[in-house]
Amino acid sequence: MTEKTASNRFIDLNCDMGEGFGAYSFGQDEPLLKYISSANIACGFHAGDPHIMRETVRRCIASGVAVGAHPGLPDRLGFGRRDMAISPQEAYDYVLYQTGALAAFVQAAGGRLNHVKPHGALYHLAGRDPNVAEAVVKAVKAIDPALVLFGQAGSRLLEEADRAGLPSASEVFADRTYLASGELTPRQRPGAIIHDAEAAVRQALSIVTHGIAECGDGSLLNLRADTICLHGDVPGAALFADRLRSGLEAAGLTIRPPFS
Amino acid sequence: MTEKTASNRFIDLNCDMGEGFGAYSFGQDEPLLKYISSANIACGFHAGDPHIMRETVRRCIASGVAVGAHPGLPDRLGFGRRDMAISPQEAYDYVLYQTGALAAFVQAAGGRLNHVKPHGALYHLAGRDPNVAEAVVKAVKAIDPALVLFGQAGSRLLEEADRAGLPSASEVFADRTYLASGELTPRQRPGAIIHDAEAAVRQALSIVTHGIAECGDGSLLNLRADTICLHGDVPGAALFADRLRSGLEAAGLTIRPPFS
Amino acid sequence: MTEKTASNRFIDLNCDMGEGFGAYSFGQDEPLLKYISSANIACGFHAGDPHIMRETVRRCIASGVAVGAHPGLPDRLGFGRRDMAISPQEAYDYVLYQTGALAAFVQAAGGRLNHVKPHGALYHLAGRDPNVAEAVVKAVKAIDPALVLFGQAGSRLLEEADRAGLPSASEVFADRTYLASGELTPRQRPGAIIHDAEAAVRQALSIVTHGIAECGDGSLLNLRADTICLHGDVPGAALFADRLRSGLEAAGLTIRPPFS
Amino acid sequence: MTEKTASNRFIDLNCDMGEGFGAYSFGQDEPLLKYISSANIACGFHAGDPHIMRETVRRCIASGVAVGAHPGLPDRLGFGRRDMAISPQEAYDYVLYQTGALAAFVQAAGGRLNHVKPHGALYHLAGRDPNVAEAVVKAVKAIDPALVLFGQAGSRLLEEADRAGLPSASEVFADRTYLASGELTPRQRPGAIIHDAEAAVRQALSIVTHGIAECGDGSLLNLRADTICLHGDVPGAALFADRLRSGLEAAGLTIRPPFS
Repeated sequence: MTEKTASNRFIDLNCDMGEGFGAYSFGQDEPLLKYISSANIACGFHAGDPHIMRETVRRCIASGVAVGAHPGLPDRLGFGRRDMAISPQEAYDYVLYQTGALAAFVQAAGGRLNHVKPHGALYHLAGRDPNVAEAVVKAVKAIDPALVLFGQAGSRLLEEADRAGLPSASEVFADRTYLASGELTPRQRPGAIIHDAEAAVRQALSIVTHGIAECGDGSLLNLRADTICLHGDVPGAALFADRLRSGLEAAGLTIRPPFS
Repeated sequence: MTEKTASNRFIDLNCDMGEGFGAYSFGQDEPLLKYISSANIACGFHAGDPHIMRETVRRCIASGVAVGAHPGLPDRLGFGRRDMAISPQEAYDYVLYQTGALAAFVQAAGGRLNHVKPHGALYHLAGRDPNVAEAVVKAVKAIDPALVLFGQAGSRLLEEADRAGLPSASEVFADRTYLASGELTPRQRPGAIIHDAEAAVRQALSIVTHGIAECGDGSLLNLRADTICLHGDVPGAALFADRLRSGLEAAGLTIRPPFS
Repeated sequence: MTEKTASNRFIDLNCDMGEGFGAYSFGQDEPLLKYISSANIACGFHAGDPHIMRETVRRCIASGVAVGAHPGLPDRLGFGRRDMAISPQEAYDYVLYQTGALAAFVQAAGGRLNHVKPHGALYHLAGRDPNVAEAVVKAVKAIDPALVLFGQAGSRLLEEADRAGLPSASEVFADRTYLASGELTPRQRPGAIIHDAEAAVRQALSIVTHGIAECGDGSLLNLRADTICLHGDVPGAALFADRLRSGLEAAGLTIRPPFS
Repeated sequence: MTEKTASNRFIDLNCDMGEGFGAYSFGQDEPLLKYISSANIACGFHAGDPHIMRETVRRCIASGVAVGAHPGLPDRLGFGRRDMAISPQEAYDYVLYQTGALAAFVQAAGGRLNHVKPHGALYHLAGRDPNVAEAVVKAVKAIDPALVLFGQAGSRLLEEADRAGLPSASEVFADRTYLASGELTPRQRPGAIIHDAEAAVRQALSIVTHGIAECGDGSLLNLRADTICLHGDVPGAALFADRLRSGLEAAGLTIRPPFS
């Protein structure tokens, strides 16, 4: 069941973190930490490794950012972004494994695991396939029924969380446009990305405060927003985060993790 | 601190399990389950995968066998048997990651994680390098200070567990001969393996009931035994397990996990 | 262009080989070697490793079996059997990498690489997607335009090989039934597998000598056969191979690699 | 046998390239290409992937830079920098596999593979262990006896190449100091790295033109230089490469690959 926040006074800002691997770094975790309220930490399948997980957990706790697991598909070469024909049972096993691994680092650091957000192709698969969605929900609940499951606004994943009584957070995007169907405009289509920061902040405010996004075709789409996704792997990520956060706070919103 | 069991009345029989991977099977888990009291379940680095971990945990719980994590080096190609120059910090991170992952499956199955036994080259490295030993102890304790750490009889790993107040179990081998130094005779030397089952049972009984093994050079070695290691990946493994268990029980010993 | 062998006097028997990994073995390579004329050797992505590749190449050459590369998807956990959304460019890169690696072992052993057969999900993807088929053909041709590309009878992969002037071999199955569409009956449907060895030999003979398979619905399907696929990972594989080979030879056919 | 170039008129500048993986980039390949004459391209074990290998080969050929294979240990998490206890047979198999894979991309691009330089821990292991050195030499020779093997000045690897009649290039470092033993000063010791670019250029010139390096203790060390190693993963790499190349050319040296 999603949090009751009609005419929101609170909103969460989340960002994927700890997506390096071994000698490789990725994204701009450090500068983004002061703008976000929730971090989704890679768990070693699509990205991340035990060393990076420990360090990222430590930093998030030190910065007062809520820690979440960010499990992905076993496709490091494709960064977990390629569709793979996995079964619901495999989805369950992968989420349980990765979330358990991250939970150990959180516990060792004296923190608390707050949420789970599937990554990339797993996020989208769980968002549209009810059996995979159910499997992901079941895995998260098996770890801790108080964990908050992050899923795309309007997705099957949120439906299944509701059905199972698992807390969930409806995620929206500030810098991506929506189709009238409620889906994101595919990246390869013109107008998919909102490059103008002010326009992105306006869309975020519209969704958060009115529950409405204006689609590319001019139609209005109802969207529930519990959390907004920020991207750490694009140029100017920290600057955009700053403007988004300032814009939201200027509109009277408090930035904090869901259910906190 | 190792369990106080001078002139043992109890002894544990442990075996590595769940060491398949994907389409590959390994060892003879099923027939061995009825003879052992503790299973060390591979956690996905040297062997094992999320699916196999779930299945193996389920079977162990159903058979009343105590569940342990069996973390290894990140060397699937070498089955975790090759020495790698890892740092103590890396040892800590690898043990925490893998044990956390397995713990999630145990929790989801309604069971309890009982112990941790490092695998292969990590077992031997932690047995001789005090810094790695300390790191492994710290990782296990961070998960749960009631977990029992399995280490080779006389090893640094057991010393460090004692120092840190972590419960530990001193492991001996029935079918391997010992050097007067307390080390196992290296596999490539003649006489390293005790091929005769009766001789192996006799060595096990001597160690368990008298704390003494006869070395190849005829000298007598003091060894503490809390648990005996069985190998599931050799021909006749179940038959040998049957004879060892019968021999121990005939001598009045009760087979059960350490600290149970 | 497929070999001109109407009313065949020659037929190839091929089998996947070298599909173990590290400490894991898989299939029954050794007993099958004397029945087959072509081996498809795993190249380290879905299965196989450098050690096993070297050993398998050596054995094939010693047995007079033609050596082929068997490149798969980068999905060891799923044994390359799960569909993955790879691009044609990725298919090209994966085939080139793996075939090049195997070719080095063949050259070091003083042999000659004869063919390439994509594995599992890559085989099926290249069989139905013309862009992936074209990419696979291009990769094989870049290594050696005399290599023979194995593809399923009637597939896009064979069409693209023909178009590019790359030698190809049309593969059929003795122990799988066909749909009237020319596709294999999906494994989960009743009647998909021909369990009776005699019936499988009869189907093979019908396809090889008359170019006709009888479908489950009684209709007759035209199929060209240059090579027949044997499975080494099923019980009784060697016995079945023996009967199939005997049956084909009794019908006057000579077993040999395509274009040899 | 190393090239006869006493009082060199020619020198090679080499750099590791293509060390990214999937979504990860690494080093500064593009800006360095115009300063070097040889590139060592990662082959997918410690770093690199089929896509990056193809792209890096293409760029090197387009820039007139000689292409070499840069095989490493199967330790992507440790970037091939951690010692692993591999056997000579494993070293042979790993070098053959990786070099074969890269050779396929070179051939597909219409180029020629020029050399092989082992990476990281494999470079050092092959430099000190004669059995591993012999295995690496044997693998390179099996691919093409005209390939040039790069090894550290004074190492066992060069000795074994000489013994086997394989062309080799003696590698020196501009920005690392040497011990009187001929080994590099270990990185963790003070004075191991020459941070001043002018001092590094002076050391390079001294070695290349006089065959002499001044050690930290003031003693003089005889070193043969066929190629100088540049590092692409440090800040200011391109600037340093520019100064080194300019310094060498100003001293009358021609920058070109060994045996070219």
